Order: sequence, then C-alpha cells, then structure tokens
Amino acid sequence: MRNYLLTLRFLGTRYHGWQVQENAKSVQEEVQNAVEAIFGSREAVTGCSRTDSGVHANRYYCTLRTERVMDPFRLMGALNAKLPEDIGVLACKEVPEDFHPRYDAVSKQYVYRIVNGSGKDPFLWNRALFYHRPIDVDLLNRAAQDFVGTHDFTSFCANKVPVNENIRTVKQASVTRDGDVVLFTVEADGFLYNMVRIMAGTLLWINEGKRDADSIPAILDAHDRNRAGLTAPACGLYLNEVNYQGRDEG
Amino acid sequence: MRNYLLTLRFLGTRYHGWQVQENAKSVQEEVQNAVEAIFGSREAVTGCSRTDSGVHANRYYCTLRTERVMDPFRLMGALNAKLPEDIGVLACKEVPEDFHPRYDAVSKQYVYRIVNGSGKDPFLWNRALFYHRPIDVDLLNRAAQDFVGTHDFTSFCANKVPVNENIRTVKQASVTRDGDVVLFTVEADGFLYNMVRIMAGTLLWINEGKRDADSIPAILDAHDRNRAGLTAPACGLYLNEVNYQGRDEG
Repeated sequence: MRNYLLTLRFLGTRYHGWQVQENAKSVQEEVQNAVEAIFGSREAVTGCSRTDSGVHANRYYCTLRTERVMDPFRLMGALNAKLPEDIGVLACKEVPEDFHPRYDAVSKQYVYRIVNGSGKDPFLWNRALFYHRPIDVDLLNRAAQDFVGTHDFTSFCANKVPVNENIRTVKQASVTRDGDVVLFTVEADGFLYNMVRIMAGTLLWINEGKRDADSIPAILDAHDRNRAGLTAPACGLYLNEVNYQGRDEG
Repeated sequence: MRNYLLTLRFLGTRYHGWQVQENAKSVQEEVQNAVEAIFGSREAVTGCSRTDSGVHANRYYCTLRTERVMDPFRLMGALNAKLPEDIGVLACKEVPEDFHPRYDAVSKQYVYRIVNGSGKDPFLWNRALFYHRPIDVDLLNRAAQDFVGTHDFTSFCANKVPVNENIRTVKQASVTRDGDVVLFTVEADGFLYNMVRIMAGTLLWINEGKRDADSIPAILDAHDRNRAGLTAPACGLYLNEVNYQGRDEG
C-alpha cells in the first residue's frame, strides 16, 4: 500500500467544503474523480480537515492511499491536468503508510482576510470580506491575544457539543494590516465548527464597540455562543498551513 | 451638462470587452444600466478604449455626461451598489465638459501577466497565462527594448488596416520577474487591435527559440502579421493605467 501526501491549493467559492456530500459539489469528490480518471479505480482520499462551503485553502493536505504505484511528480502533473482550474496540486510525495493528514496534524493556521477601505475591489470578490468601517488594528491585535492559550471555546463554536470536548489550545493570534488588507491569523492544535469565523466576527464587534476590547476572557468563560459576535462570512477564510512537525513529512 | 470621470477596475472574465454589442455582455452596458438605475434615464457613458473579451483592467477610465447633478462621492457609492461584484468604481470626479477619456489620453500602459512555474495556482485562474517553460527574463527584457520608439506596428496588429494608420510610439517596455510571476509592461500613445497580446506572444516565441532575440526590428519592418508570434490569451492582459498628463484631470 502506497500513501501519497498531496498539498492542494483551492478556491472554495464553487464548493460545499472539502467533504463529499449528497447533491453538492465538494473538493474531496473532485480529487477522488481525478484519481479515478488516472488509475481507473476508486481510491481512498483523506483530508486534513473539513472546510466550510466557500472557504479557501492556501495549503490543504490530503493523502491518497492506493496499491497503484506512480512517480509522485508525474502523479501531481496528471492530477493537475484532470482537476478543475480552481483546485491545484502544489506538491506530491510518498509518506509512511500510517501517516494520517488529520490525526498527525500538530497545529493548523487559518487566515481571515478583510479588505478595509472605502472602495470595492473586483479582484478580491469572493476572496475577502469587504468591511468599510475603519479597523483599529492595534486594538484588535491586543484583544486577539486573549484567544491565546488553552481554553474551552464553546462560545466560539456553532455546534452544540459537550463542553469538555471544546477545549483547544491557540498557539498564536494576530491582527495585522498591509495597506487596505487586514489579516486575522490564528494557529491552534485544532478548531471547532466555525471557530475562526466567530472569532473574526467577535473582533469586528469589538471594533464597532459592541463588545469591549477586554471582553474575550469573559466570553470564553460564559460557554455561550450568544455572547460572541456574528459568524464572519466564509469567503474571507483561508486554511493557510498545517504543521506536521515531528512527523516525517519533510 | 456635467461630465463625471469614473475610474473603474474590472475582472474581464465574464465580459465581451468594454464596448456594448448585441447578444453579449459588456462592461459598458453594465455601467450604463447602473447609471440608468440611479438616474432613471439613459445617459452617455464613454470609455477610454475598447478592450478584448476576457481582458481585465486595474484602471479604466470612462466619462458619464449628464444633465443630472450628484455629489461625485455619492455617485461612486451608488454605482458600486448597483454594479456587479466584478466591476468596481475606484474614484469619481467632475471634469471639464470637453474632457474625452479616449481622445485626451496621452498614453496607456498595459501589463501582460504570466505565471512561470511548474505548478497550477487556482487563485490566478483566468487572471494570468500559465507558462511552464522557464522564461529568460533578461533576454526578453532586452528584446522588448526594440519595441520602444515610433514604428509601424502592422506586424503586431490582428486587423487589416492601411499601413500608414498603424504607426504608434512605444514609450517604455520591460519584462520583469517577481517570484513565479513574469510581467511584460508596455506604454504607448496608442495600441492596435491585439497589439500587446501579439507582442507578448512574440516574446514567448523568442523565449522558445522560434524567433531570434534580435528579430523584432525585422518583424516590424516586414509589415506582416505572420512574422510575429501567436496572440497570447486575453486572460493575462490588464489595462494598467491611462495617462492624461497635461489635461486637468488631477
């Protein structure tokens, strides 16, 4: 059994997320179809995470487990030729048979991208949130530091799940600006459903004075989704990188 | 009569160029429709140039001549609200009644964007030419200098027009690289039909050894479209800027 690790990049606009589902187009299905077109057989394609409908990925990892043997560079080329234009394979290599793209992830980094200017930029349509009110980046960057650490993130989760399953460790969080583009970057050992989008929405509420800049610890303590801000739109969210440090994935 | 100068940015993928035409979607028509939705009447919208189907604009200028009066900043906001997401108004201001966005242009700058790497980048789909063969940027930049000056560009024109109408002055031409992205930038007092795309295609032929690096003067002298290279695809072309220096357009 071979285990090929694929690094993907995709524009999520046309897809209902990674995961195969009935009556909706998914990135996983496109990859499975491309593999089937190449090998003539349905093979196991496993992703590093679900992603929401419309969410993008700068780097997304999946494995292809198969009895077939193909040079990884040739496999990458064949997949790129078969995949639609909004899904690209950036790299392909063999990894140990037991490597698992989800379970072996040490941490993941997401970026939430906001265009914060007065205008409309057609080139960023569906690729960022357009937000016209001036963003106080220093204020939000300080507030975002309260996400860092091991917390129960129930207040930042769209699902109802038992409270003790909602503990995650945020390793790093920042809000930065480059011209009109404001980025909220967050790295954690794992993320709950809609967690980054609710974090981003809460930071925007802080920007608007609907929540205090120092309110995040109290929102976390409340274990109550209603205390946090709105869920920011999917089009601004990018899975940016997955860290497999410690695993032999090079 | 008021004359409003609009600075547009658009993603040309969905449009058959600027100019209104039967049975095809155009940028001009979208702007006219947005104006009509705001003012309740059809007003004259005049562009700075035709653009080909699928060609983009970082900056495109058009005027709106009307008897209606509206604060330019409010007009910009109203147009942005009515226009589709792939057309944005970056600026709006009043200009003298006789200002003409095409006749008053002193020069225009186009950029042809090429992704020159081994991979496929979904975020640049329809926004660049993907070209995998390594590009010798120094070689092409030297070759491109032969476009500079006043020449008869019949060999770089897709239309059959009388030879003496094909004289244009190229003020500047360059080929530069930033990572995987190679840009061919060219500024001239005017451009013939498909001129930049044929120039770009000819440079790629030079890169491939199908034309010599010093062959551009001979191609120009031949006044023969067949001597130049292929017409590079529209998706890589951007109208980047229009220079109205000398006119009171600020």
